[in-house]
Amino acid sequence: MLTNRHQVTIEWGHCDPAGIVYFPNYFTYFDSATNALFLRALGYNKFEMIKRYGIVGIPLVDVGARFIVPSTFGDVVTIESTVAEVRRSSFRMQHRLLRGETVAVEGTETRVWVGRDPANPDKLKGLPIPDEVAAKLAG
Amino acid sequence: MLTNRHQVTIEWGHCDPAGIVYFPNYFTYFDSATNALFLRALGYNKFEMIKRYGIVGIPLVDVGARFIVPSTFGDVVTIESTVAEVRRSSFRMQHRLLRGETVAVEGTETRVWVGRDPANPDKLKGLPIPDEVAAKLAG
Amino acid sequence: MLTNRHQVTIEWGHCDPAGIVYFPNYFTYFDSATNALFLRALGYNKFEMIKRYGIVGIPLVDVGARFIVPSTFGDVVTIESTVAEVRRSSFRMQHRLLRGETVAVEGTETRVWVGRDPANPDKLKGLPIPDEVAAKLAG
Amino acid sequence: MLTNRHQVTIEWGHCDPAGIVYFPNYFTYFDSATNALFLRALGYNKFEMIKRYGIVGIPLVDVGARFIVPSTFGDVVTIESTVAEVRRSSFRMQHRLLRGETVAVEGTETRVWVGRDPANPDKLKGLPIPDEVAAKLAG
Repeated sequence: MLTNRHQVTIEWGHCDPAGIVYFPNYFTYFDSATNALFLRALGYNKFEMIKRYGIVGIPLVDVGARFIVPSTFGDVVTIESTVAEVRRSSFRMQHRLLRGETVAVEGTETRVWVGRDPANPDKLKGLPIPDEVAAKLAG
Repeated sequence: MLTNRHQVTIEWGHCDPAGIVYFPNYFTYFDSATNALFLRALGYNKFEMIKRYGIVGIPLVDVGARFIVPSTFGDVVTIESTVAEVRRSSFRMQHRLLRGETVAVEGTETRVWVGRDPANPDKLKGLPIPDEVAAKLAG
Repeated sequence: MLTNRHQVTIEWGHCDPAGIVYFPNYFTYFDSATNALFLRALGYNKFEMIKRYGIVGIPLVDVGARFIVPSTFGDVVTIESTVAEVRRSSFRMQHRLLRGETVAVEGTETRVWVGRDPANPDKLKGLPIPDEVAAKLAG
Repeated sequence: MLTNRHQVTIEWGHCDPAGIVYFPNYFTYFDSATNALFLRALGYNKFEMIKRYGIVGIPLVDVGARFIVPSTFGDVVTIESTVAEVRRSSFRMQHRLLRGETVAVEGTETRVWVGRDPANPDKLKGLPIPDEVAAKLAG
C-alpha cells in the first residue's frame, strides 16, 4: 500500500499553557498528511478531487491516537502515513509522528468517500471509491 | 446603530505557552460576535443569509486590534459589538472585549458583501448590501 | 461516576470547506467538556488545580472518536461527559456529543495526572491521583 | 532592518465554509513568520530566548491587516517579514503574504518585550529590549 512522509514544524500557537502541542492539533497534522498522500497519489489536490468526482469530501467516521512522547514549539517532525486498507466506500489510514527515530504519536483514521444523497441533497451518503483512486491508493 | 453583546469562555486550548490567549483567537471571538449580531439583526444565521441573497459571504478586507489586558483560561468575557458604518457594499464593525468593566481588547473589522463575479465565477466581487439588511444593521 | 453536560455553539470558523465541523475541533470540544467537569467536581479550574497539586497537567495518552452525524455552523450541541474509570495515575472519560436526542459523536479520552520527573525536570512523569480528586471524580 | 521569508502551505483545515482561508489564520502565519525571523536573527528559538532573558514572551499590543486577495487550500504562499522599528521595549513588524508576485495580505504587529512585574509576579510588564537583541533585529 502507498506510504508518504510529510514534514511539520511545530508552531508556538499549536502549544498550550503546559508548553506542549495541544493534542487536537495532532489530528490537523494527520489530516494534512492524508491530504499530502492523496496529492502524491493522484497528482492533484482535494478541491480538484472533489470537483472531478462530484463528491463532498472524505470525512472521518472513526479516529484514534496514542500519544507517546510530547512535542513542543520548534520541533520539526515527520508524519509517516500509510493506506492500511481500501474497502468499497471507505478506507483506513495509519499515521506515525516521528521525532527523529522516536515514534511520538500513532494514529488511525477511517474515512468515507462521501457525496450528496440523490434522494435528499441535504444528506451525505457513502459512494463507491472509483477504481482508479483505489488503485492509486494501493500504490 | 445596532449593538450586541456576546459572551465567550476562554478555553485551555485558546491559550499559548505563556498561559494567555493566543492572539489570533481574539479574531475568532470577534468573528463569532459579528455572526451573533447578524443572527440577532436578521433572525437567521449566516448560512441562511448566504443562501437567501446568493452571496459567498462577508469576508474582511481590513482588520485591526489593540490588546490592552491579557485574558486567560477560565475567564468569561463579553464582546460588545457595534455596527459603526454601513456603506454601499461594505460595513464596519467595532468590538470591545470586556473583562468585567475593563476593556481588554478593542478591534475593528471592515467587511464586504461578496458574491461570485458573473463574468468569472472563480472570482469574488463586492455587491450592494440589500436595503433591508442595511436597515436592520442600522438598528 | 460523575457526569456533566456542557453546551457548545458551533462557530463558522470551526467548519471546513465542506461546510461541516472540521473534525479536530470535536477534540477541542471534548477537552473543554473535561475541563468543565473538573471545574464542577473540584470547584476551581485547571490552572488552580495545577498550582495546588504542583502538576503540569492532565495530558492525553489515548483518544478515540466515532463521527456519526455531521454538525455545522449555528448548531447548538450538548456534550455529555462521564468519568468512566479512575486508576492510580490515569483516568478515562467518555463523551457523547448530542444534537437534540441524536448522538452525533462519541469519544473517549485516557488522561494521566502528570508532573515533572524529580530526577529530570525536563521530563514528564505520571503521579498518583490525589485521593480527594479521585473521590470527587467518582461523584 | 532585518527581513526574512517564510513559506506556508495553506491546509484544508485553515479554510472556512466559503472555501478560503479563515482570516484569523493569517495572524497565525504572521506569528510563525515573526518567530522564524527571530530564530534566524538570534540562532535559537523563542523558548530558548524566553529562558535566556527571563521574559514571558513578546506579546502583541497592536495588530492590523489588509486582505487583498483570498487564498485557499493547496496554495503555497510566502510571508516576507521586516523589522520596521525597534524602540526601547517594543518593536514593530511588517508582513506581506505573497502569492507568486501578488501581495495577498499585508499586516503589521507591534510587540512588547515582556516580563513579570517584580512588584507583582501575576502582572506582566514591558522591559527594555537587550542591546544585542536590538542589534540583531536591526540586521
